[in-house]
Amino acid sequence: MNNVGDAPVRVALLGCGVVGSQVARILTASADDLRARTGRPLELVGVGVRRQVPRPGIDPALLTTDLEGLVTREDVDVVIELIGGVHPALSLILAAVRTGKSVVTANKALLAQHGAEVFEAADAAGVDVYYEAAVAGAIPIVRPLRTSLVGDAITAVKGIVNGTTNYILDQMHTHGWSFDEALAEAQRLGYAEADPTADVDGHDAAAKAAILASLAFHTRVRLDDVSCEGIRAVTADDIAAAAKLHCVVKLLARCELSQDGTVAVGVAPTMVPLAHPLAGVHGAFNAVFIESINAGQLMFMGPGAGGTPTASAVLGDVVTAARNRVRGVSGYGESAYTTPGITDPGKVRSRYYLALDVRDEPGVLARIADATSRHGVSIQTVHQEPLADTDAARLAVTTHVAPDADVRAVAAELERSGDVRGPVRVLRVEGA
Amino acid sequence: MNNVGDAPVRVALLGCGVVGSQVARILTASADDLRARTGRPLELVGVGVRRQVPRPGIDPALLTTDLEGLVTREDVDVVIELIGGVHPALSLILAAVRTGKSVVTANKALLAQHGAEVFEAADAAGVDVYYEAAVAGAIPIVRPLRTSLVGDAITAVKGIVNGTTNYILDQMHTHGWSFDEALAEAQRLGYAEADPTADVDGHDAAAKAAILASLAFHTRVRLDDVSCEGIRAVTADDIAAAAKLHCVVKLLARCELSQDGTVAVGVAPTMVPLAHPLAGVHGAFNAVFIESINAGQLMFMGPGAGGTPTASAVLGDVVTAARNRVRGVSGYGESAYTTPGITDPGKVRSRYYLALDVRDEPGVLARIADATSRHGVSIQTVHQEPLADTDAARLAVTTHVAPDADVRAVAAELERSGDVRGPVRVLRVEGA
Repeated sequence: MNNVGDAPVRVALLGCGVVGSQVARILTASADDLRARTGRPLELVGVGVRRQVPRPGIDPALLTTDLEGLVTREDVDVVIELIGGVHPALSLILAAVRTGKSVVTANKALLAQHGAEVFEAADAAGVDVYYEAAVAGAIPIVRPLRTSLVGDAITAVKGIVNGTTNYILDQMHTHGWSFDEALAEAQRLGYAEADPTADVDGHDAAAKAAILASLAFHTRVRLDDVSCEGIRAVTADDIAAAAKLHCVVKLLARCELSQDGTVAVGVAPTMVPLAHPLAGVHGAFNAVFIESINAGQLMFMGPGAGGTPTASAVLGDVVTAARNRVRGVSGYGESAYTTPGITDPGKVRSRYYLALDVRDEPGVLARIADATSRHGVSIQTVHQEPLADTDAARLAVTTHVAPDADVRAVAAELERSGDVRGPVRVLRVEGA
Repeated sequence: MNNVGDAPVRVALLGCGVVGSQVARILTASADDLRARTGRPLELVGVGVRRQVPRPGIDPALLTTDLEGLVTREDVDVVIELIGGVHPALSLILAAVRTGKSVVTANKALLAQHGAEVFEAADAAGVDVYYEAAVAGAIPIVRPLRTSLVGDAITAVKGIVNGTTNYILDQMHTHGWSFDEALAEAQRLGYAEADPTADVDGHDAAAKAAILASLAFHTRVRLDDVSCEGIRAVTADDIAAAAKLHCVVKLLARCELSQDGTVAVGVAPTMVPLAHPLAGVHGAFNAVFIESINAGQLMFMGPGAGGTPTASAVLGDVVTAARNRVRGVSGYGESAYTTPGITDPGKVRSRYYLALDVRDEPGVLARIADATSRHGVSIQTVHQEPLADTDAARLAVTTHVAPDADVRAVAAELERSGDVRGPVRVLRVEGA
């Protein structure tokens, strides 16, 4: 029964930045609704910050720089961790859990590296660790994977889970810009950080991929298991070639069950056919596409970042954790009973796009087709165009689904041949 | 802690049709995974059917026509209700709940009419009633609304929640067919029933709208509260006019918070601009679009019907209910603490499309514009085309957002005027 009582559920907040300040604001602004939905008032009893400076809208008496002291306070029920990074977040979360607090976190990097330790501590302590905001911002995806789809057999999760790179790639498509031009514009508008490494090199997406794969396949995938290629090397030529193939280039996080039962998890710029639902996800939006044996194809779309959207996901977790505490229970923990192993990167199967500049002479195409087929790679489409003012031509090849190693071997052999000038460009293509 | 034990969670299934037979099949085929995810084996102990005929893949010893006896059996833990309709499903569900069983149901009609009674009985008994499969088939939408978004303030839910009508409207767009032609084809292909009333007259979508609105606004909306207009009256002319306006006609279920704090819930054929994510939802797919104060815009898309997809949603609920029973708890019940009331249908605000045939004479357009503005309705676009071989013209008007009653008053006044021939066609247009 959902009894409404008076004793508050006491909440401590670590971090008061873009997301944390919104969480604090909404806890006050929506206090009546949150109380009705939880059964008890949610009371913010402390805000842990690095530097004790005034924060608009936050009672200064709540601020503390003693984060360890805050999370182990006897009267705290739920700790919201929004400071990010591994240290000191990990030790703070473990201290909170071990002293019986439930934890809500948006910390993808921490969970992708130390999830097992955190979830085992939570199980041992009988408390909840929820992290809806760690993947795809406001989009409910963690909970649907943990519960709604728990009776199904997921075969693949493919996501656009980094808004910065999606925005940059969108701008490259729209304006024909280089990566550097699009990055500079994204930085000017605040869509990219001054140091864009975590986003553009794919590390942020890789952490989310590890979490998504762990949930989808009921296992533990760590950040180290995720192959990772960012978008710095994506050129205006790639973008133009994608458009000719009726595709858009997206930074896709892919989590797939391989034929041998292992799990392939990677992040890479990928040509996505315009007919695919993920191709229509623009700007800073995120989307996660799921394929399962029974449900078929599902897609979840929404804002992937930002203070208020991320706060929405955090507060959904806070209310859920608080409801459990009011009723003296904890939710079902992580389900990680399988150990399928990680697919050998060379055995990951995909369609591919290869671009190569060749001498525009008779016999070249036949030799390229021969090299391809000798490696067991089957060509799907070929487009050849003369390169202006040269005796060379640009060849754009797409393959049927083939193992990564075989496609790389084709590219290496072609680069060594006298027919091809310069490097062969290889990009994944989504679809079967 | 997620201990795996031996004592099974015992499941009774009511109904062995398209969905029920898939649920029974998956319970066996995925037994090992379901056991690992639940902590205990899920054992199917009985299948209630109307007629005791052989069912492929079902042990005949499990079949019974004594449904009341099955759901009240002492050794049953979870009852899955898939017989549909209100009677005898309601009394069976209540009997199950009152004898301490958790219930999983896909019965939208029952919940939209008798949800309050069922949920109150579940609260009193301390058991779970889950119904993910009742809305939008395999798409996780009930649980995200109940939990993931519980810290947010939802302002609107707009859904394509009936695959049959979406398929029919799609075919009308693609082939220029009349409703009758598209319905006949849908029936031939099995997308529509021999008696298509529940689908094409919007009743199925209306029941789902009542459930979505109840969840989104933490209240109890009943089927009787839902205004309902089906697609029988949608003409090839409407479809062609929508295309000219860069729209598609969809049967939309709309649940919106009105300016006066009441809740508007309705089902109506609606012109959806092509740029809106819902416009790209084709065939028998379903999608639910959510607008909230904090998360912003979210969309969930997937298969809205079919045996296996619906079984996926049912089994997610079964595992969740079983996990709770294994741990001796029940989930947080329904949250229905608000009583906002239902918006007066005349005060529901929307953009509108009006089509009217007028005498092609000077002054007519001015008089129509004058009538419109006298009712406080503001015109957004006007397209006029001569009607071949007549002295008349077809006028297609779209309005800015206006109250329904005012738009209807404009239409009635125009119909009475000498300028307009025949009835004025009025359709909603999505967007602000």
